[in-house]
Amino acid sequence: MITTMLTTELQHTIDFKTKPLGALGYLEHLAYKIGMVQKTISPQLSQPHMVVFAADHGIATTGVSAYPQEVTYQMVMNFLGGGAAINVFCRQNGIEIKIVDAGVNFDFPAGLDLVDQKVRKSSRNILDEPAMTVDEYQKALKNGASVVTQIAETGCNIIGFGEMGIGNTSASSLMMSTLFNLPIVSCIGRGTGLNDDQLQNKINILSTAIEKHPNIITPDEIAQTFGGLEIAQMIGAMEEAFRQNMLIMVDGFIATVAIAAAWKKNPEILNNCIFCHVSDENAHLQLLELLGQKALLNLNLRLGEGTGCALAYPIIQSAVNFLNEMSSFEDAHVSNKE
Amino acid sequence: MITTMLTTELQHTIDFKTKPLGALGYLEHLAYKIGMVQKTISPQLSQPHMVVFAADHGIATTGVSAYPQEVTYQMVMNFLGGGAAINVFCRQNGIEIKIVDAGVNFDFPAGLDLVDQKVRKSSRNILDEPAMTVDEYQKALKNGASVVTQIAETGCNIIGFGEMGIGNTSASSLMMSTLFNLPIVSCIGRGTGLNDDQLQNKINILSTAIEKHPNIITPDEIAQTFGGLEIAQMIGAMEEAFRQNMLIMVDGFIATVAIAAAWKKNPEILNNCIFCHVSDENAHLQLLELLGQKALLNLNLRLGEGTGCALAYPIIQSAVNFLNEMSSFEDAHVSNKE
Repeated sequence: MITTMLTTELQHTIDFKTKPLGALGYLEHLAYKIGMVQKTISPQLSQPHMVVFAADHGIATTGVSAYPQEVTYQMVMNFLGGGAAINVFCRQNGIEIKIVDAGVNFDFPAGLDLVDQKVRKSSRNILDEPAMTVDEYQKALKNGASVVTQIAETGCNIIGFGEMGIGNTSASSLMMSTLFNLPIVSCIGRGTGLNDDQLQNKINILSTAIEKHPNIITPDEIAQTFGGLEIAQMIGAMEEAFRQNMLIMVDGFIATVAIAAAWKKNPEILNNCIFCHVSDENAHLQLLELLGQKALLNLNLRLGEGTGCALAYPIIQSAVNFLNEMSSFEDAHVSNKE
Repeated sequence: MITTMLTTELQHTIDFKTKPLGALGYLEHLAYKIGMVQKTISPQLSQPHMVVFAADHGIATTGVSAYPQEVTYQMVMNFLGGGAAINVFCRQNGIEIKIVDAGVNFDFPAGLDLVDQKVRKSSRNILDEPAMTVDEYQKALKNGASVVTQIAETGCNIIGFGEMGIGNTSASSLMMSTLFNLPIVSCIGRGTGLNDDQLQNKINILSTAIEKHPNIITPDEIAQTFGGLEIAQMIGAMEEAFRQNMLIMVDGFIATVAIAAAWKKNPEILNNCIFCHVSDENAHLQLLELLGQKALLNLNLRLGEGTGCALAYPIIQSAVNFLNEMSSFEDAHVSNKE
């Protein structure tokens, strides 16, 4: 279908459903977006997937997080056991979940339902050196893409990405600061629950990290220097999801930083993105505004794992369903506005 | 279980799930509320229902709405045909739907799946007389309660209420103004889409209506004088749902006005209420603040029908599911905060 015809036909279909013009609010915006991505007025969501990338961070040993590094592998085991929040919400909403070891600092036993894409055990400590070498970063991008390529073979056309990595709000703050040339202090939040002293410590450490690596300019340099292995794999995965023309569900602060890096490389990726929630992390709302985006949910979540995507999925499905199933004024013999 | 023990046990159960303290935000508040209503740390949602009350308004002939009065019965036929937004969302989320004729100005044919609780054809024109006589109002309360009593027999423990009635944002604005002693102009919105002239006309008409009926004080007098037959049945239904200890899903502006009237009669009803969305109708946010409530969703909806409840239902289910299904730190061998 020619694009200009499609835009007209989609908008007309939405407008002539039996409801006042615009009365389904953000759902109408979503239905339009999904129709445009799938180039049809009858879109379908199929084989929804959630990929959770886990990795450790060299910087985690410096006290930037309220939790010890071992929580990363313990939470991976919890994901594999089905007991984490993301498992509960994916199970409820019929979303297939894949857990990826992108660089956890732990030797997992064989025989687990874990996608082994470990690039190395933990990123390097950015207070000493870039988080990854160029080769490690490129491998992470490629590994992230690879899991999406395989998922695409199931017929999946909507995918969300979550993350687990003690210390990864620090990596994300550093990336946001350098991607948008903002003072680091405006990009820092309390992560999973820092007190005032811990927050000041985080600010000091991240300021030092920024000073340590001047003239880091391109999105790839930024992700390689300040990011993490799970963030790099997520960037690669998001780029592949866009190449596969999937809808991309974007979760909280860390996932939004990943999409921001991908967007700096190719702004068109935003056409496929659904921003699922705005987290309680200070910088997230600001980052969404920089991307010109509004989030579907605002539930004061600050968990990550992809939980915002899994919770928002039924509402995305509702947007598709109203487009496909609601009567038009004409079909239902309902009088339109006088 | 003794209440103080229950509050402690519920909060402990929520806090020791494998997530940072408070990281599930509003979902934790919901899980706690639902546990308190059902007096258990393992609540369940069963047989969810949506009741849509439809009625016409004497005032609708004065140009307060952008749509002609006939849309009320046409939309009832659309509900019965399964083609309205509320049908789509209830079908998706496994919510049983009942359509109630509370006072539609139309003779429906026999044999429809419509609950006939018509008190009279349309409320009276409040520019001339109270919307209902005392007897009509009492009958409406009783009819509203009756449908909930029947639904309770199915084992339903969570119920939402929607409405359809051309002119009912006007009735709701009048009720809000008199319930909270606020200037009518601060309680008026564009309803389903008035332009500036039409909005000014609505303000003039409602100001006249207020002046016509001075010294209307109690919530019942207010609902009888300024309300509508669907609003009165909704009040009766909400009160019965509370007596049955159901969870009450509250939809948009009109449903929130109904619960506000019920709350003035018995403040405890709010313990059972889940406010599902804040609508695009100006006064709704203000009304929620007056009740000290925060809504789950903010999707710029302004449709009514109970659509906000049906869309929010999966998230309410998620709150219950995390409480029942997530591992604790101890179960999952995950280290808690240092």
